[in-house]
Amino acid sequence: MKNPALYAAIDLGSNSFHMLVVHEVEGACRTLAKVKRKVRLAAGLQPDGSLDAAAMQRGWDCLRLFAEQLQDVPAGQIRIVGTATLRLARNIDVFIERAESILGHPVNIISGEEEAATIYQGVAWTSSGTGRRLVIDIGGASTELIIGESTSPQLLHSLDMGCVTWLRRHFADGELSAHNFEQAITAAQQTLASVAAAYLKLGWQGCIGASGTVQAIQEIMISQGENEQITLAKLRQLQQQVMACGHLDRLQLPGLQPERVPVFPSGLAILIALFDTLAIESMVLAGGALREGLVYGMLGRRQECDAQERTADSLIARYQLDRSQGERVRKTALRALEQVSPNAAPLAPMLGWAALLYELGLCIEYKQAPEHAAYIISHIDLPGFTPAQKQLLAALLLNQRDEFKPAPLTRQSAVDTDQAILLARLLRLAIILCLRRTRGTVPEFHLAAEGHRLILTLPTGWSRQHHLRASELQQEARRQTEQGWPLEIMERD
Amino acid sequence: MKNPALYAAIDLGSNSFHMLVVHEVEGACRTLAKVKRKVRLAAGLQPDGSLDAAAMQRGWDCLRLFAEQLQDVPAGQIRIVGTATLRLARNIDVFIERAESILGHPVNIISGEEEAATIYQGVAWTSSGTGRRLVIDIGGASTELIIGESTSPQLLHSLDMGCVTWLRRHFADGELSAHNFEQAITAAQQTLASVAAAYLKLGWQGCIGASGTVQAIQEIMISQGENEQITLAKLRQLQQQVMACGHLDRLQLPGLQPERVPVFPSGLAILIALFDTLAIESMVLAGGALREGLVYGMLGRRQECDAQERTADSLIARYQLDRSQGERVRKTALRALEQVSPNAAPLAPMLGWAALLYELGLCIEYKQAPEHAAYIISHIDLPGFTPAQKQLLAALLLNQRDEFKPAPLTRQSAVDTDQAILLARLLRLAIILCLRRTRGTVPEFHLAAEGHRLILTLPTGWSRQHHLRASELQQEARRQTEQGWPLEIMERD
Repeated sequence: MKNPALYAAIDLGSNSFHMLVVHEVEGACRTLAKVKRKVRLAAGLQPDGSLDAAAMQRGWDCLRLFAEQLQDVPAGQIRIVGTATLRLARNIDVFIERAESILGHPVNIISGEEEAATIYQGVAWTSSGTGRRLVIDIGGASTELIIGESTSPQLLHSLDMGCVTWLRRHFADGELSAHNFEQAITAAQQTLASVAAAYLKLGWQGCIGASGTVQAIQEIMISQGENEQITLAKLRQLQQQVMACGHLDRLQLPGLQPERVPVFPSGLAILIALFDTLAIESMVLAGGALREGLVYGMLGRRQECDAQERTADSLIARYQLDRSQGERVRKTALRALEQVSPNAAPLAPMLGWAALLYELGLCIEYKQAPEHAAYIISHIDLPGFTPAQKQLLAALLLNQRDEFKPAPLTRQSAVDTDQAILLARLLRLAIILCLRRTRGTVPEFHLAAEGHRLILTLPTGWSRQHHLRASELQQEARRQTEQGWPLEIMERD
Repeated sequence: MKNPALYAAIDLGSNSFHMLVVHEVEGACRTLAKVKRKVRLAAGLQPDGSLDAAAMQRGWDCLRLFAEQLQDVPAGQIRIVGTATLRLARNIDVFIERAESILGHPVNIISGEEEAATIYQGVAWTSSGTGRRLVIDIGGASTELIIGESTSPQLLHSLDMGCVTWLRRHFADGELSAHNFEQAITAAQQTLASVAAAYLKLGWQGCIGASGTVQAIQEIMISQGENEQITLAKLRQLQQQVMACGHLDRLQLPGLQPERVPVFPSGLAILIALFDTLAIESMVLAGGALREGLVYGMLGRRQECDAQERTADSLIARYQLDRSQGERVRKTALRALEQVSPNAAPLAPMLGWAALLYELGLCIEYKQAPEHAAYIISHIDLPGFTPAQKQLLAALLLNQRDEFKPAPLTRQSAVDTDQAILLARLLRLAIILCLRRTRGTVPEFHLAAEGHRLILTLPTGWSRQHHLRASELQQEARRQTEQGWPLEIMERD
């Protein structure tokens, strides 16, 4: 019996095979299973271009595992694709025939261009940002480059270089020497040479990296206390740290997973070449890539909608939030932001999301609801939001009421600390002003800023008619003032 | 504009006024606001039985706050009740008339018996347990006693003693002396004398305490590392600790909230008298009482259904759990429990709830889903489950897959550590066996126990046909065996 809400994507990669099984809930994908096996297919590629028997056997053994779970997914909701190593292998038919009989489902060897286009869809669905973006995915045996806008790729290439092939070619002796790095970087630059000009000419506003190499680099940077932006300077510094270890057998860095170690220097070399050749200023990690592109391609709806908006809509549905109350608080908070800081438009979206989602924690319990909201936001997959934006959102939700907890506002790296504090103060005021939860009950207020001082002016006589909110505002004025952020509550003359 | 999903209950108590505003979501109450003000009405009761002007003014000021939020709740979904002090005050009409005009809603002074019956409903809705139960609520100026079964009270009384009146009568000098305690306890025993025989004759299986006194005692016990069962021995020990502080001004105990201090010794004395006179063996804290009884009385549905079942149903709806998968895992886990431990019927319900709810954490994210499930269960209001049962449930959900985290299984106090470990092992096996998520895919298995060793026997040739589950079971056998709990996987000859 098939379960009509299940979708599965299998990616037969050059380094690992992956299976992703998702369940569609309220327009969002809820991951039910992720199975990954290090099959190291690329390691079985012989000099004559054929795949050896041992590698094939490892692949089939893995597919036998996947097959069991696949039985329950409707045939039309399964995508199985093979990438670089399978594209390259001469005796691929032998592998595919048996693989399809094990899986009971066709295996599709996709071209590098198809792979690039699917990666782009997976990134577009799971990452935020507007304007033209450059997407880079460094695989085991190929590297995909795409420039696109919204959900449309405009320029794409798949290059024959990857962290497994570059390991075999340039770090075969395991030495983490300047010489090996130089060779690896130069070779990658040469591979890029034929396409670089087209990318530089088209240009882009933001750069997003997918794949294990970029993820590993971000994990190392976070464990070293850096923010999430990858830059050439940081990559060069990381190269120095890697070289200081001397040999692959001794490579250890805080935040670097042991299973990533063998392919880390080669991946790093390729990324350095990309930054250098394409003059990339900074890169952030994608929320998903090939497998997500396959799954979202099957779901295939609302492709044109903004990723952050889609995520917020799904949270509202899944956690049964009161949307009209959220919209009311958002409108009130944004009106306040405009009054105190007319040039703060870039801050508006994050304040808006915090306001729309402020009651998220109520799905667990009332008393510590701000803590619960911050917990959920910190842990949940949040397609469209960067890790730094998640941090800011969690910090704002944590500070929505009760005593201030300033540390997370200082610690987040999405905006300046002063800006984060301002957003938290405005969110809290908006929540109090909207306490009646009813249309037409928010007063006509005016908020003014003088340095850190905020002055909230309410209609004449308002406080005498609205005792609960007046009492809450007085308490709030005390709390903000105690933190060194004076707040005065006044009425119009 | 009224919001048709809002309900509000206001309780004008002798010590504090409380407002509870809830939102009905999927048959559960989501608390939107709790507002509490220490009005200390009982302190304004004069020797001639009248309430003084200052106390009335404090009450009206508080109601003015409440009134603002009340405007948005439909009139039919508001209950406002006054209890002991308002029952006693001679000049109560003066207070009520102005109170009603402030609130725009009638205030209902309920009799002690009505109060007791409503408290019983609130307890029945929020606490688990079968059979006859004794419910005790120590208020500021009255104490309610009820024996009931399921949702029907069978015997109830309201007695004129409370923690505020006993403070004024027996601890007026603030001395925490043996003499004062003796006086307070004896007076409470005398108050109980007239009704005790009827309660002792009817009898009960479990005893549940509501109100701030019982909550404060439980908080102190938990911060001293005790379990949640209140016994006379523990109360006597607490009395010694209180007496060692010498005077109310110096009363400090770990876990005792400062605002509770003044009425703590008097409440403790009343509780000791109750334990002594009624020979109560042990008492647990209720999940709710008067205000919850008022709200659930308005919702007024499914009164006959078991509280734990209602809670589980609501979680399944609110977190969009896959019920058929949960039922499948529950059935499989319970079959395993019956095979290894035919006399373990008392353990079955908790194993069943853990199985039914095991995927709770997926609503946040897949990778750390067991941690998220444990987080949610630890923090959520779980009507029908005691704190110890919540702990066990959280520990089981945390241990549903991946490496074992034995500490929470040891730390929980609902069942023996050995039993908790067994439940966790069975839950994990059931989840693996049900991995296909489809009817008819769970094998006919047999589980046997020899001491701590478990032997799982599967149908002949099963493992060769079910590679993923066979691989997961092998890994599970390794994990359990490493913990010192051997698990063998076999096939029938």
